[in-house]
Amino acid sequence: MKKGVMRPGHVQLRVLNLESALAHYRDLLGLIEMDRDEQGRVYLKAWTEVDKFSVVLREADQPGMDFMGFKVIDEDCLNRLTQDLLNYGCLIETIPAGELKGCGRRVRFQTPSGHFFELYADKEYTGKWGLEEINPEAWPRNLKGMRAVRFDHCLLYGDELQATYALFTEVLGFYLAEQVIDDDGTRVAQFLSLSTKAHDVAFIHCPEKGKFHHVSFFLETWEDVLRAADLISMTDTSIDIGPTRHGLTHGKTIYFFDPSGNRNEVFCGGDYNYQDHKPVTWLAKDLGKAIFYHDRVLNERFLTVLT
Amino acid sequence: MKKGVMRPGHVQLRVLNLESALAHYRDLLGLIEMDRDEQGRVYLKAWTEVDKFSVVLREADQPGMDFMGFKVIDEDCLNRLTQDLLNYGCLIETIPAGELKGCGRRVRFQTPSGHFFELYADKEYTGKWGLEEINPEAWPRNLKGMRAVRFDHCLLYGDELQATYALFTEVLGFYLAEQVIDDDGTRVAQFLSLSTKAHDVAFIHCPEKGKFHHVSFFLETWEDVLRAADLISMTDTSIDIGPTRHGLTHGKTIYFFDPSGNRNEVFCGGDYNYQDHKPVTWLAKDLGKAIFYHDRVLNERFLTVLT
Amino acid sequence: MKKGVMRPGHVQLRVLNLESALAHYRDLLGLIEMDRDEQGRVYLKAWTEVDKFSVVLREADQPGMDFMGFKVIDEDCLNRLTQDLLNYGCLIETIPAGELKGCGRRVRFQTPSGHFFELYADKEYTGKWGLEEINPEAWPRNLKGMRAVRFDHCLLYGDELQATYALFTEVLGFYLAEQVIDDDGTRVAQFLSLSTKAHDVAFIHCPEKGKFHHVSFFLETWEDVLRAADLISMTDTSIDIGPTRHGLTHGKTIYFFDPSGNRNEVFCGGDYNYQDHKPVTWLAKDLGKAIFYHDRVLNERFLTVLT
Amino acid sequence: MKKGVMRPGHVQLRVLNLESALAHYRDLLGLIEMDRDEQGRVYLKAWTEVDKFSVVLREADQPGMDFMGFKVIDEDCLNRLTQDLLNYGCLIETIPAGELKGCGRRVRFQTPSGHFFELYADKEYTGKWGLEEINPEAWPRNLKGMRAVRFDHCLLYGDELQATYALFTEVLGFYLAEQVIDDDGTRVAQFLSLSTKAHDVAFIHCPEKGKFHHVSFFLETWEDVLRAADLISMTDTSIDIGPTRHGLTHGKTIYFFDPSGNRNEVFCGGDYNYQDHKPVTWLAKDLGKAIFYHDRVLNERFLTVLT
Repeated sequence: MKKGVMRPGHVQLRVLNLESALAHYRDLLGLIEMDRDEQGRVYLKAWTEVDKFSVVLREADQPGMDFMGFKVIDEDCLNRLTQDLLNYGCLIETIPAGELKGCGRRVRFQTPSGHFFELYADKEYTGKWGLEEINPEAWPRNLKGMRAVRFDHCLLYGDELQATYALFTEVLGFYLAEQVIDDDGTRVAQFLSLSTKAHDVAFIHCPEKGKFHHVSFFLETWEDVLRAADLISMTDTSIDIGPTRHGLTHGKTIYFFDPSGNRNEVFCGGDYNYQDHKPVTWLAKDLGKAIFYHDRVLNERFLTVLT
Repeated sequence: MKKGVMRPGHVQLRVLNLESALAHYRDLLGLIEMDRDEQGRVYLKAWTEVDKFSVVLREADQPGMDFMGFKVIDEDCLNRLTQDLLNYGCLIETIPAGELKGCGRRVRFQTPSGHFFELYADKEYTGKWGLEEINPEAWPRNLKGMRAVRFDHCLLYGDELQATYALFTEVLGFYLAEQVIDDDGTRVAQFLSLSTKAHDVAFIHCPEKGKFHHVSFFLETWEDVLRAADLISMTDTSIDIGPTRHGLTHGKTIYFFDPSGNRNEVFCGGDYNYQDHKPVTWLAKDLGKAIFYHDRVLNERFLTVLT
Repeated sequence: MKKGVMRPGHVQLRVLNLESALAHYRDLLGLIEMDRDEQGRVYLKAWTEVDKFSVVLREADQPGMDFMGFKVIDEDCLNRLTQDLLNYGCLIETIPAGELKGCGRRVRFQTPSGHFFELYADKEYTGKWGLEEINPEAWPRNLKGMRAVRFDHCLLYGDELQATYALFTEVLGFYLAEQVIDDDGTRVAQFLSLSTKAHDVAFIHCPEKGKFHHVSFFLETWEDVLRAADLISMTDTSIDIGPTRHGLTHGKTIYFFDPSGNRNEVFCGGDYNYQDHKPVTWLAKDLGKAIFYHDRVLNERFLTVLT
Repeated sequence: MKKGVMRPGHVQLRVLNLESALAHYRDLLGLIEMDRDEQGRVYLKAWTEVDKFSVVLREADQPGMDFMGFKVIDEDCLNRLTQDLLNYGCLIETIPAGELKGCGRRVRFQTPSGHFFELYADKEYTGKWGLEEINPEAWPRNLKGMRAVRFDHCLLYGDELQATYALFTEVLGFYLAEQVIDDDGTRVAQFLSLSTKAHDVAFIHCPEKGKFHHVSFFLETWEDVLRAADLISMTDTSIDIGPTRHGLTHGKTIYFFDPSGNRNEVFCGGDYNYQDHKPVTWLAKDLGKAIFYHDRVLNERFLTVLT
């Protein structure tokens, strides 16, 4: 938050078939369908999110992530960060307000890792879904499926982690919460935070640029992770791994795939941290335990199936 | 309970090294060490059990289960069941009171599946561990590790399931709670109950007689299953699979190995049933989901690693 | 189970208004409406119950319990128990099959405490609600409200506890699982079990005969108790106390009232016991902690509001 | 965090007897004793906290809070905020480094509500208790009692809420996360946050200045709240209310008293928020539900017992 970047605000995902994707994100994950646009994109959000949408689904020939957007505190901040990005040598594309319905002007840039990110300051304020503004109840009664609480973070695979790290920390004000270091002391995974969360965005080294590993949604409890696992089974959804715990972040988690092959995570818990905390460090030789704390071995799929 | 057999009372396990086994069963599972005998055997129990012991560890060259014992309601019942077993054609061995410290006369027989079982009516009543008799607190404060609640059941592998089923139901009064049926309608797994539990003992077909798959201990909650998983990792204990849920019984579970290679389960929840319930049936073609409800595939290890 | 009485099978409750009662038991507790009869009674059950109904609502001028029914293992048992009750001096009323839809012949008697009970051997087998017979999923996806798992027990207030105890243990085969004893050694509360449950029916002494304290439904987890508490608040349902734990049984619980003033409990956990366990004993001077383990004081309402 | 104030860093509490206070905060809450000083003060911290201490106990004739301290990001920030406080008209007292062992220079001021607060930039970094720096396990195995995760916030009672609000938001960079508004639109409770937490400090109006309502510690799960409740009962600790949920923040909570009469809270969950969220508003006429979501009535004790 040091530079005014506040939180992950949205992610646009490519899906092969919109209706099966909707059945997945809306009926299974429990996101709320908020709107559609003339391009055919569908806008969804998790119930605790106060802005209009956090997930945009776009039908395409290839799955993957188009871009991830961060909300900044105000227009002044957006202008300042735009200039900072330009000064840092980034190419900037400005997308006009309304290109995403209800969203203000977005400033898009590409990281050295090959991923597209956006900053924006305004989005239509719709409030928490299903709750009154005054005397709000604990939760809305009509949630579906996994009842995802919020879009939490993305994990991305790409190269040039050090340059990407520099951009995120020096220009955008993220700090390093957790990392994996190989035998040479090279950082091969970096979990970057804006808040007390263990990651708002994370990167793992891979030789190919711009790959998408997973989009993650927060759940409230370990019981909810079990419930998610049960629903994955009941709906014949493709599972990756879980329920289990991570070594990194110590979050409790389950991974699975949307019908287009994009990996999803739902998780709960996980360590908190502040910017004055030393980064939590795991050694690459112990990557199995770092990723899957209980099994202590990686499944090949987790490292290689990307979109 | 129709014939007076009440519950699983004990299991004697062979371990390769007594001290490492104790570190496992006492410090990790949280069983209480209750006694040792001149043969060097160690007696343990879980904290909610009112009788003196439920697990006996015997040092031996090969891991596995020596026998499993069931408590019957009284001496008359023991005498009657002994006669019933003889009438049914079983060979009977009577082990005198005191051969296991604090345990009365035991009547031992072998099932067609090749496993040894015992019946007994008396065991020293020590009460729940760590609680007062009057105004008992909710739980004792000094439990270790996984804080296992009780010895719950064994799962055994062997042949002649039908004959074993007949013996357990007709002579001993168990009823069939759950089963797996293959394409020919042959029962290849049978979960037998004396109570409202989904199994007090279970058998899965395998061509070799007398094999031991696992001994299972009850935990209170899904949080406790996570805690068990964490402890398995922290102690570098060999894990099999979990945390996950079973399709059969729907229990929430994790499997791991003692230092001798005997498989253990700790689990919570699971369906209840009464003797008038139709048996729950899973099809062998769906065995993956029947065993591991979330992954929906079997790991080879689960089917083949036996002691 | 020693005499063939298997479990609590149903309870008939008097409610002042059927539709508001239905909104409560169906929409809030999550019972399934199964049938209605020409008397206007409504039949409900919890989703795990295999028989057709467990709760019958009858509109009347006064709230309270008409009767509680226990299922016995078969007709022979029902005949034998009828004779045993007559021999014991009970007055017997036989209600013909079909008087409750789908239920066989019922044998009704009154306890010295002033309550009416029934025994029956047959009820239409409908199976667990919302699950397939083969390869059943872990739970059905369309449950409402608290998602009550089963009708578990009733707690009744009345006098002549000792005579009632004798009838339940000697004739019907219940055993004493837990009790409260006053300074004179007189039992003032008795929790009677047929199984490993801490109570299938319970009695607390009060000078007036035939009073109803609460009907209790089982939930799966402490998270579910919280969810029940939240729903009680969201629906402006009258709460009695909780979430909390009992000292007796150590169950985790919450109490509230149906629109007619009948007290309900939903709870999870609680100790298990077998018939060879010594009864758990609490002292009447510590009744506050025995009933409400955390607060350690009784609220007057819990002792005096009866229907 | 807009002004560089990072988080609640410590609270100094007055206790009537140090040893009984230690038994409470160390053995029951599970804080770690870190140090003592020549004044006889005892320093404790919760296991996830990376700095040396967060709770200081001082023996005194009257219970209550001496002061609460916030950590700021660095010395420059501390200097700037000192000047801002002076400019705002606050009296400032500077306490030299080392007056609290391991803590740098502290800048103390009094709020219009009558409470003393401090800012500091440095404290000895001891890391999370019981975990390795590299490849940290999920949790340390030797935690005691409630296993408190972190010192979370204080709730204070006093007058001049509006002036106090102005000081915290304008000078110190807090934002208003939740509030209670009376019929006149006057804010009678204000929950102020630096992060995504629902409160880092909170104030409720009362005519007397400088009163202490409670110090709160975070737990991980609702199971842990139950465990805390059980431990409160087992140790005959004075309970206030719970386990329950708040309407405000929706946290799951239990309140109790230390042996000196200072109120403690342990809680889990609770809503998150960002600075662009509209404050959550409850109406004073619904204060019962706002405070105790399940009971929906206040107990007199909660409003009047202060130290």
